[in-house]
Amino acid sequence: MTIDRKERAMDQQKLKELVQDMSLIEKINQLLQVTSGFFIDDVELTGPIRENGITEQSIAQAGSVIGLLGAKKYKEIQDAYIKNHPHNIPLLIMLDVINGFRTIFPIPLAQGATFEPELSKRCAQIAAKESAVSGVHVTFAPMVDLVRDARWGRVMESTGEDTKLNSDFAIAMVEGFQGTNVGEEYSIAACVKHFAAYGAPNGGRDYNTVELSENTLRGYYLPAYEAAVKAGVEMVMTSFNTLNGIPSTGNQWLNRNVLRDEMGFDGVLISDWAAIEELQYHGYAKDRKEAAGLAMNAGVDIDMMTGIYSKNLESLIEDGTVKEELLDEAVLRILNLKNKLGLFENPYKDADEEKEKEIILCEEHRKVSLEAAEKSFVLLKNDGILPLKKREKIALIGPFVSEKEIYGVWSMLGRPEDTVSIAEAADKVRMDYEFTFAKGCNILGAEDSNLIPDQHVQEPSKEDEERMLQEAVEAAKNADKIILAIGEHRRMSGESASRSDLTLPKIQYKLLDAIYEVNPNIAVIIFTGRPLDLREVSEKSKAILNVWLPGTEGGTAILNTLINKVSPSGKLPMSFPYCVGQVPVHYNEYFTGRPYDPKTGGKEYRSNYRDIPNTPLYPFGYGLSYAKFQYDDIKLSKDIMSIGETIDAYVTVKNVGEYAGTETVQLYIRDCIGSVVRPRKELKGYQKVTLQPGEAKNVTFEITEEMLRFCKDDLSFGSEKGEFHVYLGTDSSTEEYVSFNLN
Amino acid sequence: MTIDRKERAMDQQKLKELVQDMSLIEKINQLLQVTSGFFIDDVELTGPIRENGITEQSIAQAGSVIGLLGAKKYKEIQDAYIKNHPHNIPLLIMLDVINGFRTIFPIPLAQGATFEPELSKRCAQIAAKESAVSGVHVTFAPMVDLVRDARWGRVMESTGEDTKLNSDFAIAMVEGFQGTNVGEEYSIAACVKHFAAYGAPNGGRDYNTVELSENTLRGYYLPAYEAAVKAGVEMVMTSFNTLNGIPSTGNQWLNRNVLRDEMGFDGVLISDWAAIEELQYHGYAKDRKEAAGLAMNAGVDIDMMTGIYSKNLESLIEDGTVKEELLDEAVLRILNLKNKLGLFENPYKDADEEKEKEIILCEEHRKVSLEAAEKSFVLLKNDGILPLKKREKIALIGPFVSEKEIYGVWSMLGRPEDTVSIAEAADKVRMDYEFTFAKGCNILGAEDSNLIPDQHVQEPSKEDEERMLQEAVEAAKNADKIILAIGEHRRMSGESASRSDLTLPKIQYKLLDAIYEVNPNIAVIIFTGRPLDLREVSEKSKAILNVWLPGTEGGTAILNTLINKVSPSGKLPMSFPYCVGQVPVHYNEYFTGRPYDPKTGGKEYRSNYRDIPNTPLYPFGYGLSYAKFQYDDIKLSKDIMSIGETIDAYVTVKNVGEYAGTETVQLYIRDCIGSVVRPRKELKGYQKVTLQPGEAKNVTFEITEEMLRFCKDDLSFGSEKGEFHVYLGTDSSTEEYVSFNLN
Repeated sequence: MTIDRKERAMDQQKLKELVQDMSLIEKINQLLQVTSGFFIDDVELTGPIRENGITEQSIAQAGSVIGLLGAKKYKEIQDAYIKNHPHNIPLLIMLDVINGFRTIFPIPLAQGATFEPELSKRCAQIAAKESAVSGVHVTFAPMVDLVRDARWGRVMESTGEDTKLNSDFAIAMVEGFQGTNVGEEYSIAACVKHFAAYGAPNGGRDYNTVELSENTLRGYYLPAYEAAVKAGVEMVMTSFNTLNGIPSTGNQWLNRNVLRDEMGFDGVLISDWAAIEELQYHGYAKDRKEAAGLAMNAGVDIDMMTGIYSKNLESLIEDGTVKEELLDEAVLRILNLKNKLGLFENPYKDADEEKEKEIILCEEHRKVSLEAAEKSFVLLKNDGILPLKKREKIALIGPFVSEKEIYGVWSMLGRPEDTVSIAEAADKVRMDYEFTFAKGCNILGAEDSNLIPDQHVQEPSKEDEERMLQEAVEAAKNADKIILAIGEHRRMSGESASRSDLTLPKIQYKLLDAIYEVNPNIAVIIFTGRPLDLREVSEKSKAILNVWLPGTEGGTAILNTLINKVSPSGKLPMSFPYCVGQVPVHYNEYFTGRPYDPKTGGKEYRSNYRDIPNTPLYPFGYGLSYAKFQYDDIKLSKDIMSIGETIDAYVTVKNVGEYAGTETVQLYIRDCIGSVVRPRKELKGYQKVTLQPGEAKNVTFEITEEMLRFCKDDLSFGSEKGEFHVYLGTDSSTEEYVSFNLN
Repeated sequence: MTIDRKERAMDQQKLKELVQDMSLIEKINQLLQVTSGFFIDDVELTGPIRENGITEQSIAQAGSVIGLLGAKKYKEIQDAYIKNHPHNIPLLIMLDVINGFRTIFPIPLAQGATFEPELSKRCAQIAAKESAVSGVHVTFAPMVDLVRDARWGRVMESTGEDTKLNSDFAIAMVEGFQGTNVGEEYSIAACVKHFAAYGAPNGGRDYNTVELSENTLRGYYLPAYEAAVKAGVEMVMTSFNTLNGIPSTGNQWLNRNVLRDEMGFDGVLISDWAAIEELQYHGYAKDRKEAAGLAMNAGVDIDMMTGIYSKNLESLIEDGTVKEELLDEAVLRILNLKNKLGLFENPYKDADEEKEKEIILCEEHRKVSLEAAEKSFVLLKNDGILPLKKREKIALIGPFVSEKEIYGVWSMLGRPEDTVSIAEAADKVRMDYEFTFAKGCNILGAEDSNLIPDQHVQEPSKEDEERMLQEAVEAAKNADKIILAIGEHRRMSGESASRSDLTLPKIQYKLLDAIYEVNPNIAVIIFTGRPLDLREVSEKSKAILNVWLPGTEGGTAILNTLINKVSPSGKLPMSFPYCVGQVPVHYNEYFTGRPYDPKTGGKEYRSNYRDIPNTPLYPFGYGLSYAKFQYDDIKLSKDIMSIGETIDAYVTVKNVGEYAGTETVQLYIRDCIGSVVRPRKELKGYQKVTLQPGEAKNVTFEITEEMLRFCKDDLSFGSEKGEFHVYLGTDSSTEEYVSFNLN
């Protein structure tokens, strides 16, 4: 899509003239981003900070700020800044607004599970609105990194393992944050990240080496970034990692050739936090000066937080390492963004103390948060124990029952007091159910102390621990059913939160075991920021509802689901591995020359593991409903596709269960033979259909030739003639297919 | 090195004339390899086999055979074959002679642990000799695949994770098998495998997708294959895997451009078992005919076992898909190998029934096997419990104490009756020690049944199991020290033996626990084909001696080590990970932009795991001795290297312990800054030094500019000016360094 720009105070010509009129130092300072602390806290400019390039002057002219100020403070600072600036250029404010500003939505991985990008667009709109009135202009979202390894803690910030799903969410979120024009009311600029392939660190260890062939990079990893660029994203962030031995932040080929020339990105490129300086630690630059030159020549416009440009660009330009035209281009891009935001004519933009009070956390926003949470929950298992029935005696047990910090670590403005816990939500329907409550244990026990950094978790005494457990056991004994709310501590996922193990904290297994012994009627609610190894939980429960980190309305959404005010409809956007020894695992793998099919043969000389299946415990796209869906009559409008034509794929979905529900019907295509081998299957479409018991609907997908294109060995994209299998089903493990030929 | 060829019956001109004189079918049949069964067992040519291209005629003219015949049978078959062949061309016999023919040496991974390629050369010479007299001409060895993931069962057949070590062993083994000339007495042709990068399957799952950037492929994976080619290897085998989406066996770029044009390989290229046919299952070829054409055009000369060339090449040539010149080239290469082996003038070559009896398993061969085993053992831990002292009461406990199948799965001719067990070796020194013996448990218990395929292991009754355990506990109680011999079943490693878990069979932990409870003076002997997670073993033992799968003289070597007839001197050729959640892990990783150093800071925003260290439990190059080595006075002859110059690095190694021992002094170099980031450190040299107690020796390494070259972003190799760190130490974790600059 093309972005329709409003008339702005400055046109390109004026902006260029402005750049020409700026002094070298002024221009260099536009490239500096500092934290808001330098403006509001009177941070002392100690020797090392000063030495690194952050001085009174550079702060006074810094082009942008990372951090929240709030409307009032923002206006004061903007006023003072503009007044003092030699060319009265306004300041740009950026913030990590990932899944909500103060109204917190489910984490991005959970949003992926909705299979409803339009809903994420609305979430992003709300986040933008709350941000905008607080004086924020740019958010460092969406993250669209493809992820295949659940050890990596930052999978929580991705929408999962699928290229198409990530691309769809990338577009939706960019459109949500930016609206049709970042200058319009309540819009903020989006920043797609992390360019490129940050989501594939070796061993799932954050910041680690990324190793990908160019074919895989282009075919699977780059499309979501490109989708964001095509959707008009105003900013891109470089990634921390090396890609095939070259740090992204110093990678000219990646940032200039691929991002700018091929994808046509003409917005601002910002480094991740201190990533330019880190070119040294990678062993790519011998000192800060060289690092600055490499990043500048690679096209990185803004230096997040290190002062490395402020300190070194002048001498790099003097000695010819960096051409001043490159600096001018960078400055122009930054000024261009400020101009698009309308800051030259209206430096406050949407910042407004009154609107802050009115808009932030308003009922309308909470409603969307509730809807997103409900739609993100994935029912992994249900042996008929859910939904709860009125009058049943329900024991609500577990450390998450009364927990109010049920949002991810990127929800910096999330507050427990804004959040609804399960217990609070349960309290509202206490007339219909007999609830008892027991914590059972803390989220983390003594043996789990290494699972979050600098743990300050208050450890109960042995006696308290025993008492908590005993109370839970008693509650379990007397209940018809147990809702056991367990999972990962919110700080176990996110940045710098890689784990070598994907099981729950040890103390929670003690609780599960103790309860299971006295009453096996257990429905487990799992809180998590990543796919987990749920084998043991699955063995000892009759239902599992995965609720991720659901945000502000989490408790309400869970209660609504438990009592079937809504039926679960989420689908996994990332495989839940059988165990950590199976990762990385993803549904769209290649067949190998010796594919293993458990139904047709022994394991010898087939591609498999001795001790576990090849398939994850719960596959991509998987998720149950209280309804029961039956797929019938899968057929195609024709079995030959000629170039320029499309084929329709039909399926009838019927609800043969007792409850109403919404199903996400998924279209997968397999290209049987390729000059580069093709995945087992690839998601090409999805549609939601809501069905009452006994109701059936026809669902139609249009298959186009474009869907059949892939990255060939010469790195061009195209389709190839031959046979294609079309799968329409409830998740990625669906096996029934119909075929057509591309001629 | 260049290979000096003897005068042969046929020169190139004659061979070419021969090819020209052969019929199309005759030529095609040269490309067929069938199993020996077709020649000796009168295999019935059922419909499907015939349909696939293996007919009486194709067998009668098949260019080569895989399988052992023995000298007598071989001569008969060769006589009949030549007589019936229209051009009296001799038959070529190939066999998997990996780490020994009948005299079994330690598995290749164990040989890597010797850090003594010269010793592997002698092993290969012996294997060649025993093979040659039995009528074998070619072995499918060495495998030089770089490996970083212990889940992959075939790591046992590799020499480990290091490019230089693999290259050195590649050269040594090729020279060992081939001598200076494959035609000379007792030489056989070697076949380096698996081209390319078979050792990097995704998730450690055998045959799975391999994903590598071209830079990493060329910089780390290809050099060992190239070393073998430069050493004159006569044959190369394609790999099963896809490399970046293209199956190696159909990859023209890999086999023609890289292997033949760039590396200059002019020998025979053979497919792995049925790998051409498998191009279909990869989704790369639509049928067998297309698969045959793709492989032929990619330059694969011999089809192992499927008849796919026999069936399809004629029509592929007819329809122009394959040019007949390509067929002629392939035939010429095969005939050339036969000629180099001298088969035209002496079709029996070295096959000789009398020599079979005299040479195979002779005392001299056993001695080398003993030496190799002793040098391959890696002492991972020793809290002073080893070596054993005379008169001590020693309980030898565990399923491996009397086990005689202590060779890897690739030792097809290994026989238990040829092999010395620990118990048998102990029996020979029973005058000096008070030994008691107890099995304790079987290698695998009821819960371990999925660890080997089609398990036919006899399961003891519950009572027998309890009795075995009790006997072991009693033996432990009454002993001064316990030698506990446990580990992986030999069939748990090798092809198609991937594991998701790296711990020992469960029943062995029961044994360890039971013994540990009554007597913690435990020295553990580990039998394994892969790096294991030894955390628990390490916690519950005072010493760990890793003996891999040691071969024919395994028991003797172990006893000799336990009683200090030899001191352990092996060094790990592959990291022993902390746990499976850490893999893939290797010492020569990149730093990242946020390197984690446990000594200097917290874990937040550093590249690490929350729950485990970054470093393996036992690193590459690691291995203790009964001696204790101290490194002093590391220095360089100068601190500037100009092009064309070399630098000497010196270190004094002193034995400050009570026992004599041999140390492998290791030279690692770090290139501090690179245009492609460089590894933490890289092995560049190693030397063995034997020291008596109190003795010190100086060790010198010459550092050349060649050692500093690496694969740059443009894929050329070269060194770059700047600072280099030189580490001389006992393993890859050594931190002390001296620096020089390349000018």
